[in-house]
Amino acid sequence: MAQKVKLSTIAEALGLSTATVSLALRDSPLVAEVTRERIKAEALASGYIYNRRAASLRTSKSGIVGVCVHDIMNPFFGEILIAIEHELDRHRQTFILCNHYDALAKQRSFIDTMLQLGADGLILSPAIGTPASDLELAETNELPVVLIARTVEGAGAPSFRGDDSVGMEMAVRHLVELGHRRIALVGGTEATSTGRLREAGYLRALAEAGIEFRPEWRIAGPRSRHSGFDAVPGFLRLSDRPTAVCCFSDLVALGFMYGLARAGLRPGRDIAVTGYDDIDEAAIAVPPLTTVANGQKEVGRRAASALVARLGGTPFAAADELILPELKIRNSSGLD
Amino acid sequence: MAQKVKLSTIAEALGLSTATVSLALRDSPLVAEVTRERIKAEALASGYIYNRRAASLRTSKSGIVGVCVHDIMNPFFGEILIAIEHELDRHRQTFILCNHYDALAKQRSFIDTMLQLGADGLILSPAIGTPASDLELAETNELPVVLIARTVEGAGAPSFRGDDSVGMEMAVRHLVELGHRRIALVGGTEATSTGRLREAGYLRALAEAGIEFRPEWRIAGPRSRHSGFDAVPGFLRLSDRPTAVCCFSDLVALGFMYGLARAGLRPGRDIAVTGYDDIDEAAIAVPPLTTVANGQKEVGRRAASALVARLGGTPFAAADELILPELKIRNSSGLD
Repeated sequence: MAQKVKLSTIAEALGLSTATVSLALRDSPLVAEVTRERIKAEALASGYIYNRRAASLRTSKSGIVGVCVHDIMNPFFGEILIAIEHELDRHRQTFILCNHYDALAKQRSFIDTMLQLGADGLILSPAIGTPASDLELAETNELPVVLIARTVEGAGAPSFRGDDSVGMEMAVRHLVELGHRRIALVGGTEATSTGRLREAGYLRALAEAGIEFRPEWRIAGPRSRHSGFDAVPGFLRLSDRPTAVCCFSDLVALGFMYGLARAGLRPGRDIAVTGYDDIDEAAIAVPPLTTVANGQKEVGRRAASALVARLGGTPFAAADELILPELKIRNSSGLD
Repeated sequence: MAQKVKLSTIAEALGLSTATVSLALRDSPLVAEVTRERIKAEALASGYIYNRRAASLRTSKSGIVGVCVHDIMNPFFGEILIAIEHELDRHRQTFILCNHYDALAKQRSFIDTMLQLGADGLILSPAIGTPASDLELAETNELPVVLIARTVEGAGAPSFRGDDSVGMEMAVRHLVELGHRRIALVGGTEATSTGRLREAGYLRALAEAGIEFRPEWRIAGPRSRHSGFDAVPGFLRLSDRPTAVCCFSDLVALGFMYGLARAGLRPGRDIAVTGYDDIDEAAIAVPPLTTVANGQKEVGRRAASALVARLGGTPFAAADELILPELKIRNSSGLD
């Protein structure tokens, strides 16, 4: 049985001490690289499995970070995850993922699993309705939590995200500058900080332009490509129809543009459309999507790096860290 | 400290035995549901954390299944993951995810982590170049492996996937029936079973129709939306240009259609395009995408259920299980 191979078996085979073998398998710089490689090759050949479970009971460090978001399939998160992984790789932390689909029970079960496995930390885009006490439970049990994309009212956990209200202001101002006076906001929900803050930015930019907001312009709800598509018929039935639409996200905007095309309208010529996130697809869409770059790379990098620093003993700075968004002007907002 | 709360503390508070509390926290049906709920509420209120690490050393069952694929952001996998999760939830297995990006080192590191955590099993879409020995190492160490989407030559692990060659044959036959005689195959690689099998189906359908294959019709490589988009200029430069294009996946097809539109061509009217997978987006795309439904739900359900059965003592059936694909005819292949 491969599991029966012991450190001492490897040490004996190579004429080294058990301590050297143990350090090498933990990638300690105390062992010369060439020796480490030799030891790892021998360990692999002999089928040795480092028993992290037993080791973590001794040292209380599992080398594992949990990452949990509500929509892994959204490229917005995919881009954040790549940045997190890059940062954690540098510090030899393993990273396990979970999709909570905005279900509080799923999120709790993942936090529970992380606690049970003795994970070192958690990077979380909190599910709708997350109470601060859920995060405190983790923190009290030595599972530090870093938030991404969303905040949780009253929670001490630091959060890393783009400045949602400023970003949406940029999109609306751009449409106002192009001459639009009837501008809808499609998608997002008041239940998330993202939804609330983007709506606040939209309302502020309208007020700044002296435009009186009409409630029918706010089509709340859609957060996926498909629901963006489904929002189009309702939008087209609005009396005194808006000439421009700010969408909550790129996915919503891309679905909305599919819906407009399906209805025989050309986005950018017949209706101006903007997105939010600047995912990879935005630049190649038909038409290319005007959107707000939301700093995914920075969000992921800074969140992971704050967690790694905390694991090394540096306390969290309590405040939110906001990344300045950037407007990317392409054809969907007007140029044809 | 919340972690110091013991089973006996909860038992005492409720006037129950420690054994009852322990069983209830493991969701044993031996304890009445109402009592279980009372115990869990008390455990939650007192901040008790069930120490799965210590427990798994005793029982060798962690309740954890690892799932590792090469592209979590591809909705094809997203749809499989939902089906897997649904099945595992029913059996109270927790599920942790990993994206290996087709990097063998990443996949090995995840398998290693699963072994170290004492995970119960692994569901894997194997990275390009996965040797059968990597899967045997897991199996030898009591980590049973089930493959999805791809196979590994010489591996004993069962695999669950759509019938890739039959599916691609369906797409090509459909285009032949519409009168096409010059048909390209865009995307995929010989390095994966998926790529090899879909290419084989394409070649078989051409031969069946008496069409002589020309090497320039095979544009290998693209596997993402963006690389599908990038393949268009090369395609358009082909002399005696094909009138129809079978794409390796829906993502490649959707990117390819963006690219055609960018070049002023209308997919379905100027160039017929088919996809593969029938992801949710296919039906709302512009134009709606003709594609091959690849049985994602069935793949996920059957893979998870085979693994769960194995954990319950039923040995794997060694063979591949193929799900019959289904052609979904929409506008991208011809109707305008």
